[in-house]
Amino acid sequence: MKIAVLGTGGGARCHIARLAELGHQVVVGTRDPKTTLARTEPDMMQNQPYGRWLADHPGIPLATFREAAAGADLVINGIDGHNAVKALTAIAEQLKDKILVDYSAPYTYNPDIEHPWPTPWGVNPIPDPCDSDSLGEQIQRALPDTKVVKAFVTQEQATVVAPKAIGGGDHTVFVADKDADAKQAVTGLLTYYGWSDILDLGDIVTARGMEMYTHMHGAIGFALGFGTHFGIKVVR
Amino acid sequence: MKIAVLGTGGGARCHIARLAELGHQVVVGTRDPKTTLARTEPDMMQNQPYGRWLADHPGIPLATFREAAAGADLVINGIDGHNAVKALTAIAEQLKDKILVDYSAPYTYNPDIEHPWPTPWGVNPIPDPCDSDSLGEQIQRALPDTKVVKAFVTQEQATVVAPKAIGGGDHTVFVADKDADAKQAVTGLLTYYGWSDILDLGDIVTARGMEMYTHMHGAIGFALGFGTHFGIKVVR
Repeated sequence: MKIAVLGTGGGARCHIARLAELGHQVVVGTRDPKTTLARTEPDMMQNQPYGRWLADHPGIPLATFREAAAGADLVINGIDGHNAVKALTAIAEQLKDKILVDYSAPYTYNPDIEHPWPTPWGVNPIPDPCDSDSLGEQIQRALPDTKVVKAFVTQEQATVVAPKAIGGGDHTVFVADKDADAKQAVTGLLTYYGWSDILDLGDIVTARGMEMYTHMHGAIGFALGFGTHFGIKVVR
Repeated sequence: MKIAVLGTGGGARCHIARLAELGHQVVVGTRDPKTTLARTEPDMMQNQPYGRWLADHPGIPLATFREAAAGADLVINGIDGHNAVKALTAIAEQLKDKILVDYSAPYTYNPDIEHPWPTPWGVNPIPDPCDSDSLGEQIQRALPDTKVVKAFVTQEQATVVAPKAIGGGDHTVFVADKDADAKQAVTGLLTYYGWSDILDLGDIVTARGMEMYTHMHGAIGFALGFGTHFGIKVVR
């Protein structure tokens, strides 16, 4: 199965590096490869420039979003949440009949609203949509011919790709979609990453709960100490 | 420590019965005791009338919210979320200098909005406030002389009062407040109930995450099968 990762941020790099490490062919998509490779400053999240990172991970092709999606069977969406619908809609044709795993969080940034955890880049994340809709559903509505699976968003991506680093892997990850085959493919990818407790939440509507949980994830993370990785286990 | 439980719904009854079972003196507060005891029909959540329930739990006094709070050291708020601020503000004098444990969820009910899990009573829960404020903070602002601790809201109350029923108790509960003594008292109550993993999230602002998590809790619960009780363990 050919996998494309859309996005070159910190989360996307976790998937790119891990898939490469596992010996999997992976293609990376970005808005404009030349611009991405020309950057010399860290990004908003303080990740080093992608070109420098790529020097330590040689042989991973970088293409446009469109080219990367066109050649893939399964696409991982690592585009930042407030740009995801627009960027994905533009390549709807290349995503047709494919599985798109979406882990984007629906955050917009509003400097006028005080947030309990100011971000390192000085603006405040506000979830939109929230509760009565979700980014996962918006993406599915924008791409009716694509099988959108919401997953990964309840964790740091470093944990998603290497769950055994925490508690020996004894914690839970979630998948949501109406399409059983698409969920099975994503479950397969998660198993490949090392997950054993993969909870099927049902239809894509349950993306709402996953996306809203990200606030609680932040609260727990700050309580444990900024930068601490942890997992959530559903004990039943 | 004298404990009052405000509210006679299903969640409140878990605390009332458990405290009585543990041999603890507990007083129950309701809007109007006569009206509560005169009810013959199940409530909105399909709980049997309180008078009938009380017949199986004899000797537990029922008073007004005001009387119950006046005689207590620690008060558990089990008033439904969309009435809590108003009802508690009315008895601010009786709550002065006391610890109030709040587990209310900030739900209003809107029949015009489609919700993924229609409630048994046919209306749809919408969280308000959400993310940029919380019901816990609203209650704290309304009662500046009361120590409001947000807790319990991330679970069914049946699980809060008897955590060992799930996974031998190997899961996590959360407390939030700026007052260390108040949190310590609530931690003591949780320990008394049987909890061993009690995570201090920090200030009352972290009530936002706990309240938003309730949507995810619903999603997990429906995935496991309606009525299934479960716990969440923070694996670190």
